[in-house]
Amino acid sequence: MASDNSLWKSSAVDVLRADPGFDLDNFDRKGTPGFTGNKSDGERLLGERGQVLSDLQELLYANGRSGDKRSVLLVLQGMDTAGKGGMVRHVIGHVDPSGVKHAAFGVPTEEEKKHHYLWRIEKELPRGGYLGVFDRSHYEDVLVVRVHDLVPPDVWGARYDEINDFEEKLVAGGTTIVKVAMFLSLDEQKERLEERLDRPDKFWKYNPGDVTERKLWPAYQQAYSAMIDKTSTEHAPWYVVPCDRKWYSRIAVTELLIDALEKLELDWPKADFDVEAEKARLAES
Amino acid sequence: MASDNSLWKSSAVDVLRADPGFDLDNFDRKGTPGFTGNKSDGERLLGERGQVLSDLQELLYANGRSGDKRSVLLVLQGMDTAGKGGMVRHVIGHVDPSGVKHAAFGVPTEEEKKHHYLWRIEKELPRGGYLGVFDRSHYEDVLVVRVHDLVPPDVWGARYDEINDFEEKLVAGGTTIVKVAMFLSLDEQKERLEERLDRPDKFWKYNPGDVTERKLWPAYQQAYSAMIDKTSTEHAPWYVVPCDRKWYSRIAVTELLIDALEKLELDWPKADFDVEAEKARLAES
Repeated sequence: MASDNSLWKSSAVDVLRADPGFDLDNFDRKGTPGFTGNKSDGERLLGERGQVLSDLQELLYANGRSGDKRSVLLVLQGMDTAGKGGMVRHVIGHVDPSGVKHAAFGVPTEEEKKHHYLWRIEKELPRGGYLGVFDRSHYEDVLVVRVHDLVPPDVWGARYDEINDFEEKLVAGGTTIVKVAMFLSLDEQKERLEERLDRPDKFWKYNPGDVTERKLWPAYQQAYSAMIDKTSTEHAPWYVVPCDRKWYSRIAVTELLIDALEKLELDWPKADFDVEAEKARLAES
Repeated sequence: MASDNSLWKSSAVDVLRADPGFDLDNFDRKGTPGFTGNKSDGERLLGERGQVLSDLQELLYANGRSGDKRSVLLVLQGMDTAGKGGMVRHVIGHVDPSGVKHAAFGVPTEEEKKHHYLWRIEKELPRGGYLGVFDRSHYEDVLVVRVHDLVPPDVWGARYDEINDFEEKLVAGGTTIVKVAMFLSLDEQKERLEERLDRPDKFWKYNPGDVTERKLWPAYQQAYSAMIDKTSTEHAPWYVVPCDRKWYSRIAVTELLIDALEKLELDWPKADFDVEAEKARLAES
């Protein structure tokens, strides 16, 4: 483990976990909780710890190939421009693509709309040995759906318990769920959208709907607050990550994933064959 | 483009493409065709050209998000230990995981066996904007299936034309198929298998069946030779890559992918909104 990791005075897991009574209104979105270093420390650390993450992911994959049913699922939720895509590129980008199951959940397709909202989620769950990554998730169905009144309140209101049950079963089946709620400030969002309008190589990331959604900011914050309050469970807690500083959010999520993988206490799978006998067979081949 | 790319005296595309009459028996598996540099040049170049590949992939993804239906599909075929997994990790590892659709095709599952052999392939094809990666593919059905007599000769014999038709339709639909046949020597394979038996962190990669398959080496070479002969088409040629030197095979495939992406002549998508009007809306939000 890199000695520079001592720049964390409290672990990301401890300091970012949403405990009961979590107060989103007073959450500092420019903060770097637990971390004592600066941006250049953070960027250097991302490379070092990304390698640790990569090594742990290979262990997970190796065990999966040997029959271990456990997996890790990273769930990323956050407002537009919070940095979900960059998180995938710069954090998940460290690990072997062969062991990653990535899925992005946008506006439901016509096909998806015909099914229960968890139908499309279940199809994308990681198998044993895989690191699943959800860019948005089933939580859209208590966020955008709630803010835009796409279904009546008693329908979305019932989903919190349903999601908790769903996740509890996943955890019981061997999936460690790392739920990350990414929060940036309204001002920082404006700057990031301005950049997309200033640079022709960023136009494709801009959607006029993003400005429309900004006007619903308070309703979204309320929906996020309720989501965290009702679905930050013992088996699958939320980690709330300030994202005005991208470098911080990336090292924080790297640490959350490393922690999840370390807790699996993985070792290289034992040989399920006679090593010496195989060496002899190979020598003769 | 990195100036060091001048270390290629002939382009990878030209020198590796399997032309009619390609002779696998006399193919040098330790060669570095077209490349004048050494291992350390190759390793440095992989980083530089990996970044070029990453930039091109982002362009493809951006265009896909804007409605472009084109995609690129890398098909990796090769004997055990040829380095398919390392190719994914070290070449595809350079690009944003969000834009990659990776699929590995092993022994067919019970479900897959109930369907046509192309059924499982079709489910994993990349959508517009994506870089698909197949670790093994539909070609298993004219390789392992042929060598082990899993179906009668007239059945596998009919598949070459069927695969050509299948791929021609994919290409017509906008998919550039980059088919890479990876060849290592029998001696190099032995060394790589020995390493897996010498290192407990590699045991999970070892399968006693690999030694059994070594005894079928000539039959496999014959099946590969027929595959290249019958399915290296104008619309989807095979590139035959010597793999005894991993560093060479990785820079070669990086170049094949860069070439495929450059031929799409991608540019950043134009804004489908009024940029100035959006700036005004954003400023007021």
